[in-house]
Amino acid sequence: MIYLDNAATSFPKPEQVYLRIDDVLRRISGNPGRASHRMAIEASRVIFSAREAVAKLINIPDSSRVAFTKNATEAVNIALKGLLKQGDHLITTSFEHNSVAKTVGRLEQGGIEVTRVRPDNEGFITAKDIELAIRKNTKIVCVSHASNVFGTLQDIEEIGALCKKKGIIFMADGAQTVGALPIDINKMNIDILAATGHKALFGPQGTGFLYLREGIEPEPLVNGGTGELDTVLEVPDRLESGTMNTPGVGGLCAGVEFLLNEGVQKIRYHEEGLIAELLRGLGEIEGVNIIGPKQASKRAALVAFNIEGKKPAEVGIKLDEQFEIMVRTGAHCAPDAHREAGTHPDGAVRVSPGYFTKPQEISFFLDAVRTIAKK
Amino acid sequence: MIYLDNAATSFPKPEQVYLRIDDVLRRISGNPGRASHRMAIEASRVIFSAREAVAKLINIPDSSRVAFTKNATEAVNIALKGLLKQGDHLITTSFEHNSVAKTVGRLEQGGIEVTRVRPDNEGFITAKDIELAIRKNTKIVCVSHASNVFGTLQDIEEIGALCKKKGIIFMADGAQTVGALPIDINKMNIDILAATGHKALFGPQGTGFLYLREGIEPEPLVNGGTGELDTVLEVPDRLESGTMNTPGVGGLCAGVEFLLNEGVQKIRYHEEGLIAELLRGLGEIEGVNIIGPKQASKRAALVAFNIEGKKPAEVGIKLDEQFEIMVRTGAHCAPDAHREAGTHPDGAVRVSPGYFTKPQEISFFLDAVRTIAKK
Repeated sequence: MIYLDNAATSFPKPEQVYLRIDDVLRRISGNPGRASHRMAIEASRVIFSAREAVAKLINIPDSSRVAFTKNATEAVNIALKGLLKQGDHLITTSFEHNSVAKTVGRLEQGGIEVTRVRPDNEGFITAKDIELAIRKNTKIVCVSHASNVFGTLQDIEEIGALCKKKGIIFMADGAQTVGALPIDINKMNIDILAATGHKALFGPQGTGFLYLREGIEPEPLVNGGTGELDTVLEVPDRLESGTMNTPGVGGLCAGVEFLLNEGVQKIRYHEEGLIAELLRGLGEIEGVNIIGPKQASKRAALVAFNIEGKKPAEVGIKLDEQFEIMVRTGAHCAPDAHREAGTHPDGAVRVSPGYFTKPQEISFFLDAVRTIAKK
Repeated sequence: MIYLDNAATSFPKPEQVYLRIDDVLRRISGNPGRASHRMAIEASRVIFSAREAVAKLINIPDSSRVAFTKNATEAVNIALKGLLKQGDHLITTSFEHNSVAKTVGRLEQGGIEVTRVRPDNEGFITAKDIELAIRKNTKIVCVSHASNVFGTLQDIEEIGALCKKKGIIFMADGAQTVGALPIDINKMNIDILAATGHKALFGPQGTGFLYLREGIEPEPLVNGGTGELDTVLEVPDRLESGTMNTPGVGGLCAGVEFLLNEGVQKIRYHEEGLIAELLRGLGEIEGVNIIGPKQASKRAALVAFNIEGKKPAEVGIKLDEQFEIMVRTGAHCAPDAHREAGTHPDGAVRVSPGYFTKPQEISFFLDAVRTIAKK
């Protein structure tokens, strides 16, 4: 079995992730931040250690600005719905994942003004495109660091610098990049970062986080939890009502520790090498059309493509049934991106290697695609 | 170490819960309901099995009416915020947990009318109290099946019958009761049930669910996920945007299977016996004041109390440090309930045994309280 669907969920996880989750479940009970007994205090430590690990990874000076969420989608929703008010203007792109696209659509119905910047053929947008869209009431610029369909890595440092200059909040959706590429909140001028735990951070499903620069305090989507009044609570408490996913966040912490130990740059070199090989190999197969940039250095670790005359779902089933290769097919929860790529509604086949993918698995995959394309 | 904080989080979990979570993590990847490859399909099966197990437990005819959430707080928020519109009237109680109380407070600010029915000295409310509060625009009656401070079991069947007669949606907060007591959605006329996974259902933290009778389709708090338009999605998909907590829900499923196998009634007999012993023992200690009913049969498996002249936090620390007994002290995220109990702001000591608690642990606990009360 060859797993090449890491852009959906990384698999396998490092052994220490499995062990940490089991340890938290078997040894630590009680609700973090609530009771005073020793196990509840240890549960709080699990959460705190994870905040510290995430903060270290992306250079956040104060780890209390990291709020844990159940996934990146929740993180995106909290930030956009909790900050934008009627009459505000939002700039985003025309090819966002549904987590952003649908949330923005809902906000638009509620009176938020929206501009969707369109990409070039390879999926790039520029700071210039964004600058042209800025209005007096522009409050947030929200851009995916890398599209989950195009794979295109945006120059978010440049976009962040523009937003800083203009006094606009810059929000990045890092679902495909946090953990996979070196990210520095300060250097990149990121005010808000939404991330998932179960992809490049090697955590389990059910985890994600939202980073918010000091002073940015969204209205919570979910009320409850501790304290007398919501209004006195700050991030992270105001956004973490209800019992937290302590074992999941513990596993996320173990994943981030693994990353910090290996080094994000080392992981990136490995994955970029595999992507270069995929682009080279797929580019040589007749009838294969690749979505997005042809250079690995301009991509996150995923390649979406189609084989002329074949439905992506059909290709995916053959890869699974005949070759035991797992890839993702269809719209990838991003119909808008497929509209921009000209691949709506069938979508594409998306192959996404991970840190544990071996070069020979890429060769085997390319052979399989060659065989399927020939028939 | 004696763990008596099961009303916060049950501990330990049945062995099969630990094993199931580890198995899902190590063997199954992919996002449920998304890709077509075999591991993603298996992930979908994990979620489906859990829906079926929950449905079986509380007699839901169609398991697709169960939406998984990250905790009970999220479930409560989805139901109340997703259904109530400006001008609607809500009836709840004056002693709800913050998950309801704070959410209702926020809704009130947004123009929802609210009536809070007050309990008697033992924490009981009656259908008559609720009937008196009904207005023409009453849309939802929301009541905790058992308060996490009083422990009082409400006659929700009677309240449900009233709501049914009046054509009002009846919502129960089952955080302290689902899994601990026999619950039958139909017999009890429950239209909406919010539940947590990590208490009596023996699942891990990070899980919960919301049951909604057919035809009740709240606006989602979180947009995203699959599909072209949110409006065409029904429960559960409309409420489960973003990647789900597959290992957590797998663990929850194993917990519910354990419950179904043991029999909820057997678990209830065990816990009711322990509560009777606690009430008897605590009642005999001079200076101990118990909050809520004096009969075990009228209670969920928790007893909150105070020792005259001693702060609950101080009692809790002594129980932990001198006797290695874990209980919960303070406001229990329910300051409103402590206001009604006359124990605000210090709160109380809450002892909550579980299915794995032994009678001799209760004796040891009572001895410890006796010792602390004497000093």
